[in-house]
Amino acid sequence: MELTDLQVYTVTINLGPRSYPVYIGENLLDEAGRLCRKASLNGHAALVTDTKVGALYSKQVLKALTNSGFKASVHLVNAGELSKSFEVVATLCEDFVRHGVDRQSFVVALGGGVVGDLAGFAAAVYNRGVPVIQIPTTIMAQVDSSIGGKTGINLSSGKNLVGAFHQPLAVIADTSTLRTLGRREWNEGFAEVIKYGVIREKRLLSELQNGAQSLPDLVRRCVEIKGSFVAGDERETTGSRALLNFGHTLGHAIEAVAGYGTFLHGEAVALGMIAAAHVSAKRSGLPEEDIKEIETAIKLFDLPTQLPSDLSRSKILERVFADKKFIDGKIRFVVTPKLGSALLADNVTIEDLESGLQAIEPLQT
Amino acid sequence: MELTDLQVYTVTINLGPRSYPVYIGENLLDEAGRLCRKASLNGHAALVTDTKVGALYSKQVLKALTNSGFKASVHLVNAGELSKSFEVVATLCEDFVRHGVDRQSFVVALGGGVVGDLAGFAAAVYNRGVPVIQIPTTIMAQVDSSIGGKTGINLSSGKNLVGAFHQPLAVIADTSTLRTLGRREWNEGFAEVIKYGVIREKRLLSELQNGAQSLPDLVRRCVEIKGSFVAGDERETTGSRALLNFGHTLGHAIEAVAGYGTFLHGEAVALGMIAAAHVSAKRSGLPEEDIKEIETAIKLFDLPTQLPSDLSRSKILERVFADKKFIDGKIRFVVTPKLGSALLADNVTIEDLESGLQAIEPLQT
Repeated sequence: MELTDLQVYTVTINLGPRSYPVYIGENLLDEAGRLCRKASLNGHAALVTDTKVGALYSKQVLKALTNSGFKASVHLVNAGELSKSFEVVATLCEDFVRHGVDRQSFVVALGGGVVGDLAGFAAAVYNRGVPVIQIPTTIMAQVDSSIGGKTGINLSSGKNLVGAFHQPLAVIADTSTLRTLGRREWNEGFAEVIKYGVIREKRLLSELQNGAQSLPDLVRRCVEIKGSFVAGDERETTGSRALLNFGHTLGHAIEAVAGYGTFLHGEAVALGMIAAAHVSAKRSGLPEEDIKEIETAIKLFDLPTQLPSDLSRSKILERVFADKKFIDGKIRFVVTPKLGSALLADNVTIEDLESGLQAIEPLQT
Repeated sequence: MELTDLQVYTVTINLGPRSYPVYIGENLLDEAGRLCRKASLNGHAALVTDTKVGALYSKQVLKALTNSGFKASVHLVNAGELSKSFEVVATLCEDFVRHGVDRQSFVVALGGGVVGDLAGFAAAVYNRGVPVIQIPTTIMAQVDSSIGGKTGINLSSGKNLVGAFHQPLAVIADTSTLRTLGRREWNEGFAEVIKYGVIREKRLLSELQNGAQSLPDLVRRCVEIKGSFVAGDERETTGSRALLNFGHTLGHAIEAVAGYGTFLHGEAVALGMIAAAHVSAKRSGLPEEDIKEIETAIKLFDLPTQLPSDLSRSKILERVFADKKFIDGKIRFVVTPKLGSALLADNVTIEDLESGLQAIEPLQT
């Protein structure tokens, strides 16, 4: 980087021929065109964003792209999870054709997790694959979903049931965009940050409490952690990437049973982590004080630590049963034996999950 | 193979970790279950076929699968190109979920090019990719489309504009299924066979004339040729795979301008090959007698050698212009300098294409 040398971090996600840089810093949107050139891109840029993020930043990114000599077009989708559908992908692709997006072109995904997943998937299948540049604008997307190449859409029966592994050519994480996040969305992102603390770097948890580090620093450390799990297990086949699912098995089930939209993804993951911590106490000896430390971190961001009493625990368990493979009544489940580490246990029973859920304090509604 | 040792050919498509066998022979449908086991598959088999092929063969394949201990479900789509749509992929995927198709499951694509492309694409994106077994039942699909991993669907503006490279785990080409083909569909497949003769193995052309070889022999030789172009250029990036497009640039344009369904794909390719032969005469010195030999082979299968006089030549050229990159008025175009060889010329002009088209005899309508 030139002028901004001191403030910009570059983290490389190591995936052999599919390795790519993640740029992290303030005011990076204006650099988008230059960074696309640096990724050896030349063709037409199809900028995909949603109505909410587009209103704030699409002009700025479009200008950055055209200033660097790119032809570019803007493709708006509705904000929200409902856009992650076959229908919207079809509309996007038809729209790409009309705007002359061809094999030499590329997609720029500007927005949160929904836009990243959706536009990434459209890029994965359009013309059997065109490159994508991810420009995440939420904490959740910067520290987690923009990294690692998972893209996807939802079916009526569940989230992310259709998709592709499609690594971006670069990720541009402009931390100044995070300032326009609403409070709930801001907090949500920290569920994944806390998760990184639990499974890899305990110190993150205490640092969150004293709030010592800058946002670019925090994002950089999270991206490094995510990258370390993704490298060597790009398609989640060998196991290391599966550890990123700490809190997610029950989190996803809670999210679905409560009804999508009731809890944000990160909120459901926070509850899932509390249950997973109790399972960890039983199955891998996680000390009580570590459970408390996780709960303290969760509370710090106003994320839920209580599960509404009218939310059926048995429905949540049924959902896990439908989603996951149980062999001889046991499930592969991510536990933490002590903060800063995680492992895949294969001896977790449905009763363990049940008592994990019971250990979440009920919220009287 | 056991009992059928003498009649079954196995051709390996060499793609490193994605290499796979193509089994070619009579009465192979009954072996489908065993061959899926041989591919190390264990989960639920989602058999995708169309109304036409399904009526003839789905029971037989389903039985072969269940006899080998697979749980299996049948997923029917309408016969015809219109099924290659986002809508049908969405319906298939929702249907997969209802039938318990999970990450450990696989798709079996039973049918012609449409089913292979569609079911292959559904397999590529369902759960971010599940394995697919291709069971092609047309000549076109056995000698061409089932080999090489191209899958895809159509957009309103053109064919195969959305898709994925998704190599099958195995291809089962049962040549006895070809006996139920209608005459026009049978003939259509030979357009690609003739193409292989032109670009790689001249002897194929004369052998087609004296009809000396068995169907399994013919399919095997075509699969070997296709495999040789695909190996080393899996994603059509380095060039060798592009040579398979001989006759296809103009063929696709003719197919589109005439209106999809007017010409079968192979019929349009036959016309495209005649034009490409004339371009080859001009640009790479193809002798007049070689053009005649191509035309003779085409006529042998009642494929068209005349272009309806009311079909606008300039619209065909416009279509090529819209589909392909011209740089300084020149296009990369596959020519044959002499039968049995092909190369990518980069000095072909729009005028060359125009005179190639003019050289096709007009059909008074």
